[in-house]
Amino acid sequence: MWRSIPKCLINNIIFRNRVQRLPAGQNSLCRPKQEVSLQIYRPHTPTAFKISMPISVIEKVEAFDKQRCITVHWDDGNHSQYPYVWLRDNCQCPQCFLSSAKARKLPIEDLDVNISVEKVISTDSKISVVWPDQHISEFDSNWLKTRSFAQTTRKERQQKLFLTDRQNWGSELQIPTASFEEVLDNDEVAYQWLKTLRRIGVMLLKNAPAEKGQVAKLGERIGYLRLTFYGLTWQVEDKAGANNVAYTSGKLSLHTDYPALHRPPGIQLLHCIKPAEIGGETQIVDGFHVANQLRQLNPDAFRILTSIFVDFTDSGVDYCDFSLQSKHRIIDLDHNGKVVQINFNNATRDSIFDVPVELVHPFFSALKDYMNLMYKPENLITFKMEAGDVLTFDNWRILHGRQNYISTVGSSRHLEGAYASWDEAMSRLRCLEQALYGNK
Amino acid sequence: MWRSIPKCLINNIIFRNRVQRLPAGQNSLCRPKQEVSLQIYRPHTPTAFKISMPISVIEKVEAFDKQRCITVHWDDGNHSQYPYVWLRDNCQCPQCFLSSAKARKLPIEDLDVNISVEKVISTDSKISVVWPDQHISEFDSNWLKTRSFAQTTRKERQQKLFLTDRQNWGSELQIPTASFEEVLDNDEVAYQWLKTLRRIGVMLLKNAPAEKGQVAKLGERIGYLRLTFYGLTWQVEDKAGANNVAYTSGKLSLHTDYPALHRPPGIQLLHCIKPAEIGGETQIVDGFHVANQLRQLNPDAFRILTSIFVDFTDSGVDYCDFSLQSKHRIIDLDHNGKVVQINFNNATRDSIFDVPVELVHPFFSALKDYMNLMYKPENLITFKMEAGDVLTFDNWRILHGRQNYISTVGSSRHLEGAYASWDEAMSRLRCLEQALYGNK
Repeated sequence: MWRSIPKCLINNIIFRNRVQRLPAGQNSLCRPKQEVSLQIYRPHTPTAFKISMPISVIEKVEAFDKQRCITVHWDDGNHSQYPYVWLRDNCQCPQCFLSSAKARKLPIEDLDVNISVEKVISTDSKISVVWPDQHISEFDSNWLKTRSFAQTTRKERQQKLFLTDRQNWGSELQIPTASFEEVLDNDEVAYQWLKTLRRIGVMLLKNAPAEKGQVAKLGERIGYLRLTFYGLTWQVEDKAGANNVAYTSGKLSLHTDYPALHRPPGIQLLHCIKPAEIGGETQIVDGFHVANQLRQLNPDAFRILTSIFVDFTDSGVDYCDFSLQSKHRIIDLDHNGKVVQINFNNATRDSIFDVPVELVHPFFSALKDYMNLMYKPENLITFKMEAGDVLTFDNWRILHGRQNYISTVGSSRHLEGAYASWDEAMSRLRCLEQALYGNK
Repeated sequence: MWRSIPKCLINNIIFRNRVQRLPAGQNSLCRPKQEVSLQIYRPHTPTAFKISMPISVIEKVEAFDKQRCITVHWDDGNHSQYPYVWLRDNCQCPQCFLSSAKARKLPIEDLDVNISVEKVISTDSKISVVWPDQHISEFDSNWLKTRSFAQTTRKERQQKLFLTDRQNWGSELQIPTASFEEVLDNDEVAYQWLKTLRRIGVMLLKNAPAEKGQVAKLGERIGYLRLTFYGLTWQVEDKAGANNVAYTSGKLSLHTDYPALHRPPGIQLLHCIKPAEIGGETQIVDGFHVANQLRQLNPDAFRILTSIFVDFTDSGVDYCDFSLQSKHRIIDLDHNGKVVQINFNNATRDSIFDVPVELVHPFFSALKDYMNLMYKPENLITFKMEAGDVLTFDNWRILHGRQNYISTVGSSRHLEGAYASWDEAMSRLRCLEQALYGNK
């Protein structure tokens, strides 16, 4: 159902701390909270868009000069506080906000951080703030409610924006699959692909044509691939004079790709064009899940791997000549202590190791303990990719490896790989969500 | 002078903790420390290369099972410790190390972290370690010495690898300049350009052709540009329906570009094809220098800006449709408390602000204090770019802005911009250094 919101009657007017309430009868537009799908006019958003959320109805508004906050009381009994300075900072008028760019024009230099409020006028769906210089800022009730500073609202909002909840897994995981062609052609499938990549960390796309050029199509689906010194896409084959251990027929132990970059690729796309006849099985493990096991089983090792910086290096010639150096903790935590990134490739771990000598042995012990946990049968998945499989995975979370294989002349194993970035993939996910469900 | 190092005579042999010294006469090859330029045979580095450093001469070697370390005594009176596990981990033999990729083959799974040593044989320029399984690892004395775990060596090494020393500046800075064409054609000038970009944070390249395509050439000089949702290069002009505040004729207050990405571009290249007739002056400030002033003058504000995460957002359509969200501290510190990155663009700072309501006002106060310091005359540089100028700067450090300008039909201001990444630029710097001076 699509309809326009009628211009609501005024609920109350606040002249500084004094609330001027209007007759109760004029409050009749207060509606019960309901799920509706409606076209809503947003003064500074150029295109109308569909939203599907409860209408947030304002019951009354209070302004508190002492706390420099406005309190909005909602008809569901809850209330939200909005600091004056934040309201002034986020004025949505054309003078303060460039609607075509959805960006703030008002510079910090021109913001009075100690601003007071002259007057507040509210309806059940809007508040208007009159500032001392008579500038007026209007705020839609839904816009305000989604920006509530309450902890629960913030937490939900952040989860929705960044999809930070992950589902841990061990060897019991049935690797989620989707059709390669459907990911390219069907928005709903593409959306589920990226959501799965975020939550589970891995998805196997099936039945891609067994020829080069398929990972590039996935790059276009996201937006673009991430170019590195190995090229926009790269061929994993047994090569003479290999400039990377992956370009041999040898075993690759579990690793993340490219820690020699300070920001390793967030997403890896690996397309099997031709599997090895004998060997070459793929191995994957949930690095976050195993890191959390290490935290429980060996807190000292966990502390070492989350604190010591390890040097990585990669030099050679491919897309062009290169000489990379980086420093990473093996396990990155966020400011809340949550595991958010694994950086480990034993091949490119530098012989230069920037730690006091007495930390060297504890570091190796800790690293070995972490690796031993990864290789436990309950954590490790081993499977053989088929021609046309595209393994897509979170390179900040999943460690991958391969068994060695027998390289045969003229009929060798061939994968084509590429990298994409999480910012870009999350952007595509939000765009798809907006197109499919209209959620903002 | 180029010459080969003769195969040295054996200095001493250690059988576990027992040092077997050879007759003193056989020590005659110990040379005084001297600066030489020589061709040195590195068993597992395919191409010989020039080095210019003192030869590290081994006086004697001791092995200590209790500490699981080998101690190398140098002829300059110093000594260095090398843990057994680190030596085994860094064996350079073809079984353990892939020389064509300069990468480790030995996996952590196969590394005995509690390994002991069977025998150590040393000459004045090499040690050979025989492990209990009779595997032998050989290490060149120079290779060992540059990998010393001593604090001073590590510090020098890290400075050389990452060039972390910065030179702070205020408005007294004469912006360093170089010829655009020379940066493209002359390795020494290109090297100085990247070194200056690292140390000072800004360099103005002069006399580029006043037409599009020049920043792309700088990208090729580095290796490649960083593609973003605004394209590989982008045109800064006054555009109708601008999808970015930069694409107007309005003032841009001091900012870093693209904090809506979790890893904003490290380097920005801005080529002035046509300056505005009136207005459009460029402003730059050393964000690190001002952050350190804030740390002194207002520690509370500094603490707030280095701890609170701020939401950034950017959505629209350009290279393709996009919807970015990110979280940054305004001032990033490394684990030693050193300022390493500024993330601030008021235009794309989100109205969503994920903090408890009581932190909102302190945040705005702190941010305003930081901005006020930036705009102080002693910190701010204002200048007008000329046609053919390419302003190149460290986008993690330098905040830039522009004065508003008068936009005239058919004769408007036009800049072309592009981004590059620090990892790639540092890689080019190391490659140039190697080519010019042979330092590794």
